[in-house]
Amino acid sequence: MIFVGERINGGFKDIQRAIKEKDKSIIQHWARIQTEAGANYLDINIGAVSNKVDDFIWMIETVQETVETPISIDSNKPIFVEKAIKFCKHPPIINSTTADKEKLDQIVPLVAEHNASLIGLCMDKKGSPQDVNRRVELAAAIFSEVIEKGLPPEKLFLDPIVMPLKFLQPQASHILEAISQFNLLSDPSPHIIVGLSNISSQSMEMKLINRTFLVMAIKAGLDAAICDVTDMELVNGAITAEVIQNKHIYSDSFLKAYHAARRK
Amino acid sequence: MIFVGERINGGFKDIQRAIKEKDKSIIQHWARIQTEAGANYLDINIGAVSNKVDDFIWMIETVQETVETPISIDSNKPIFVEKAIKFCKHPPIINSTTADKEKLDQIVPLVAEHNASLIGLCMDKKGSPQDVNRRVELAAAIFSEVIEKGLPPEKLFLDPIVMPLKFLQPQASHILEAISQFNLLSDPSPHIIVGLSNISSQSMEMKLINRTFLVMAIKAGLDAAICDVTDMELVNGAITAEVIQNKHIYSDSFLKAYHAARRK
Repeated sequence: MIFVGERINGGFKDIQRAIKEKDKSIIQHWARIQTEAGANYLDINIGAVSNKVDDFIWMIETVQETVETPISIDSNKPIFVEKAIKFCKHPPIINSTTADKEKLDQIVPLVAEHNASLIGLCMDKKGSPQDVNRRVELAAAIFSEVIEKGLPPEKLFLDPIVMPLKFLQPQASHILEAISQFNLLSDPSPHIIVGLSNISSQSMEMKLINRTFLVMAIKAGLDAAICDVTDMELVNGAITAEVIQNKHIYSDSFLKAYHAARRK
Repeated sequence: MIFVGERINGGFKDIQRAIKEKDKSIIQHWARIQTEAGANYLDINIGAVSNKVDDFIWMIETVQETVETPISIDSNKPIFVEKAIKFCKHPPIINSTTADKEKLDQIVPLVAEHNASLIGLCMDKKGSPQDVNRRVELAAAIFSEVIEKGLPPEKLFLDPIVMPLKFLQPQASHILEAISQFNLLSDPSPHIIVGLSNISSQSMEMKLINRTFLVMAIKAGLDAAICDVTDMELVNGAITAEVIQNKHIYSDSFLKAYHAARRK
C-alpha cells in the first residue's frame, strides 16, 4: 500500500496559520508525525491561503528540512507544479492532472523529465463522472496518453474520483466497480489511488466509513490512498486487507513487522 | 446482512459446563445477549460434550424459552437434525450438509418439509477444497441438487469453507473469489455464508482479521455470517459496508437506525 499523508493542507486551520505566519514548527510537526506513521509521500496543498508560488515552495522546503519523505505536489495550477517540482529532493508525485488533452500535453513531459509520478483524475472539462463507464473511459484516455508520451504504467496513479457517501450514496459502488475495471487496463496495471476522506465528508461516522471503504477498495484493487495516515485503525485495516490478499506474509506480529519495515 | 450468533457452542467452556450441569441460565444469557445484539439466528452446537440427542433438544428448548430468535441447528449427525427440527418454533437453518449426494438426498426433503433453510458446505467426502474452481464446482453441485429437489434459492446458504489465515494464507483470496463467483449461479443468487471466526483461528489479531475479512467478503457478495454478533465493531463494519453498497439508505445515524430496526 502506498500511503500519502493528507495533513499538510491549507484547509486545516493550523496549517493555514503556519503559512500566514511562516511558522515552520507546525508544518514540520505534521511532516514528522506522518512520516513516523508510515507515509510514503507527504501531500502539500496550499489551499486558498495564498496564491504565491513562493509560499508553496516555502512549504515544500520546510518539510524537506525535517524529513526525507517524498512530496506529493498538490496543486491544479501548472505554474505551481512547474516551479515546485524543481525544489523536490526526491522524485515527487504530481497531484494531479485531469483527462483533458491540453493538460496532459503540458504536464506529462514535466513528470517524465523529473522521474516523477502522476495522479490522473478521472474527470475532464465536462465535469465529474457519474457512473462506472465514464470513469473507465476517462481512465483509459489518461492511460493511453501517458503511455504514448513514454511514462511507464507504474508512474501513473489513476483516481476514480471519490464522492461523499452522505450526498451521493450510489456513487460509492460505482467507484469500487471502476477500481476493479482499472485493474484490467494493463498488466502490471497502473496504481489506483483515492482521496479517501471525501467518502466520509460531513458524515458522523467518518473514521468507520473511511476504513470500511478503504478495505473494500483494496479488495477491488486499490493500492494507494491519500488519507489520514495517523489513523492507526485505518492503516492497520489496510495492512490486514493486504495480508488477506497474500501481498504480505502472515506472521502473528504482522502489524509490527509492517510498521518496522516502514520506519527503516 | 444475516447474522448467525456463534456463541451457544459446546466448544466454549461455559456452554460445556451448562450442558453438563443442565444450567439454563448461561445458555439463556447468551441467547438474550446475541438476540439484543441483532442476531437473526442463534447457532446451537453441542460439540463433543454429549452424544445424546435429548441434550441437544434441551439446548434448543432452553433457548426458545427466553427468545423468539430462530435456531441454526448445527450438527453433522442426520439423526440430531431430524429430531431437533421438530422442536423448532420458527423455521430454522440446518447447519449443514456437504455436497455429497446421499447427504443431500437425506436432508433436503427434511428442510423442505419444515420450511427451513440449509447451509451447503462446499466440500465432500474427498475433503476440503483447495482452490476457487473446486469451490465453485461443489457450490454448483449443491445448488442444482437443491433446486431440483424443489427448494428455492433463497433457502440455500452456500459456504465456501473459510480456512485459517495463519496456516493457509493463500486460501483467503480463493475464498473471496469463490464468493464473487457464487453470485453468478442464479439471479437472485442463493445466500452466501461463512463461519467467520475460522479466518482468525489461533491468530493474535483475531478481531481485526475477522472484521477486515468480513468487509472484503461483503464486497465480494457475502450476505450472511456465523460470527460473534456481540462484537460491535464487527457488526458496525458490516453495516457500513452494506451502506457503501447502497443496500441501506445513508443517514447520519445509520448505525442507530439499523440496530433499532433489528430490535423491533
